[in-house]
Amino acid sequence: MNKIKIGIVGYGNLGRGIEYAIAQNSDMELHCIFTRREPSAIAPVTDGVAVVSTDEAYKYATEIDVMVLCTGSATDLPVQTPYFAGLFNVVDSYDTHAKIPEHFGNVDEAARNSGKTAIISAGWDPGMFSLNRLMAEAILPEGESYTFWGKGVSQGHSDAIRRIEGVLDARQYTIPVESALEAARSGTNPKLGTRQKHTRECFVVADEGSDLSEIKRKIVTMPDYFADYDTTVNFISAQELARDHSGIPHGGFVIRSGKTGQGGENAQVIEYWLKLSSNPEFTSNTLAACARAAYRLNAEGAIGCKTLFDIPPAYLSAKTPEELRASLL
Amino acid sequence: MNKIKIGIVGYGNLGRGIEYAIAQNSDMELHCIFTRREPSAIAPVTDGVAVVSTDEAYKYATEIDVMVLCTGSATDLPVQTPYFAGLFNVVDSYDTHAKIPEHFGNVDEAARNSGKTAIISAGWDPGMFSLNRLMAEAILPEGESYTFWGKGVSQGHSDAIRRIEGVLDARQYTIPVESALEAARSGTNPKLGTRQKHTRECFVVADEGSDLSEIKRKIVTMPDYFADYDTTVNFISAQELARDHSGIPHGGFVIRSGKTGQGGENAQVIEYWLKLSSNPEFTSNTLAACARAAYRLNAEGAIGCKTLFDIPPAYLSAKTPEELRASLL
Repeated sequence: MNKIKIGIVGYGNLGRGIEYAIAQNSDMELHCIFTRREPSAIAPVTDGVAVVSTDEAYKYATEIDVMVLCTGSATDLPVQTPYFAGLFNVVDSYDTHAKIPEHFGNVDEAARNSGKTAIISAGWDPGMFSLNRLMAEAILPEGESYTFWGKGVSQGHSDAIRRIEGVLDARQYTIPVESALEAARSGTNPKLGTRQKHTRECFVVADEGSDLSEIKRKIVTMPDYFADYDTTVNFISAQELARDHSGIPHGGFVIRSGKTGQGGENAQVIEYWLKLSSNPEFTSNTLAACARAAYRLNAEGAIGCKTLFDIPPAYLSAKTPEELRASLL
Repeated sequence: MNKIKIGIVGYGNLGRGIEYAIAQNSDMELHCIFTRREPSAIAPVTDGVAVVSTDEAYKYATEIDVMVLCTGSATDLPVQTPYFAGLFNVVDSYDTHAKIPEHFGNVDEAARNSGKTAIISAGWDPGMFSLNRLMAEAILPEGESYTFWGKGVSQGHSDAIRRIEGVLDARQYTIPVESALEAARSGTNPKLGTRQKHTRECFVVADEGSDLSEIKRKIVTMPDYFADYDTTVNFISAQELARDHSGIPHGGFVIRSGKTGQGGENAQVIEYWLKLSSNPEFTSNTLAACARAAYRLNAEGAIGCKTLFDIPPAYLSAKTPEELRASLL
């Protein structure tokens, strides 16, 4: 059997995660890594893998089956995903929720023109969480949906703290409130506000001599990021931050609480729960499964842009339909 | 918009659940109920719905968009699903796991000959649990999968107790062992045996003067059903059984514990958890969503037999692809 030849664009946490994911999937092989950095400065985990400038990627259009894009959602993917979809089957984890329809449109046009298949916004949220929201709502149309995030590191919130004067480094954890989780699971369909659902815990390394109470005030009152939450601020040393907070765990819960039967007499609760020691590696593994699906969809002539909503789940698996029905149904 | 016209075959708990489910989905309408009983003895919940003998169902082939089969897996569905797939788009909840490949083959042949679309084994297990096993394994190929059932009523085990001499009625609960659940969730990928994962609790109404210790012995030593489990037997009155054990709750957990990254250094755990006050009504609601998918797939020319593994999840939802991307992705 020919293995699916994967190219990786961007070699940060996500790109390296794809490399590990490919090693777990025997029907795939890593063909090439593309980077905007000096290629000789990149040391891939996999022996003998070529590292090439992203500018040269177009030359690989006939060699690579699926290009996995591992760059940033803010400015990279809006340009790169349509560009690469004009040349390759592609997969990305574009996660700016509000702009997904626009991104979808741009990528769809490029992929239709080139006859390629693109899968966007694959990961956990957007991604598996989205898929669980959809399926749970379709099965239980009368009810309430809840998404909780954490406990985990929010990169955006950590960055926001780092921009405060006097802060040298910071790590922010988003933490779901246990009593709110229990309420969502209870079958009573409660309405839960922002402050009820999550708290935020910050670990901050401050510059010597800076005004700690002023830093704390700036954090807890920061609009959008912290003002609507109960926020705890802990000042620690750079050594403590490195020792105790260097991981990038995350996860969360998608809960659908619905009613069925006569007069809605029966409470039905669906919960999907992720506990991730590595947030980027889980996204990488989801991207790898989606790369397989993109390859298969394209082989069938299903071109254009797709999301996890559009993919028959069997396409994600290395097993045949017969194996899946016999072993997992 | 034309509503999807649904026919129900078999009017027990599942069939009545479909009737309630259709009332929650504004794009569907109940066209007719088919029964093997005397039609005049059936009182549908929905005003004015026709009740017709199953023998006459073939006459409705041009009127009904999807027939939802709500009869039994043991002897009914192996005959009825292929028969009805020769005339209608159909959905069933066939749940004899070991015989699914055979059932799939029979239904696929019938549906391909008639140009119809059939979705089999839709419900929660097989069904949503199967789908979660597949997706979790595809994302985390290196790891262990666990399925726990309960706490809930097992009809098959309750029936097995009822067949013991001196037993008037019985209700059996399957209960997941909390410490085993915690172990499965821990990220350590433990091996868990049958006795470690579940206990069984029985509530038994015995005939006056029967030998209770002998009934208990027959239950706890019964091969396949109880011998491999820690089983508790409680003798209660018929009134207590009716008062405290008349519901049909169920549910359970599908857990995938995997490893990612260099040397598998990062534990990643996916959990899907159902807490159902009514087991049959949850299955009914899943069947209703699958009826929508069968209708759409057939309209696109996707004929033959499918399972939840083969259905793009968006087809389960009443929302348009644009609405789904904007609101749930």
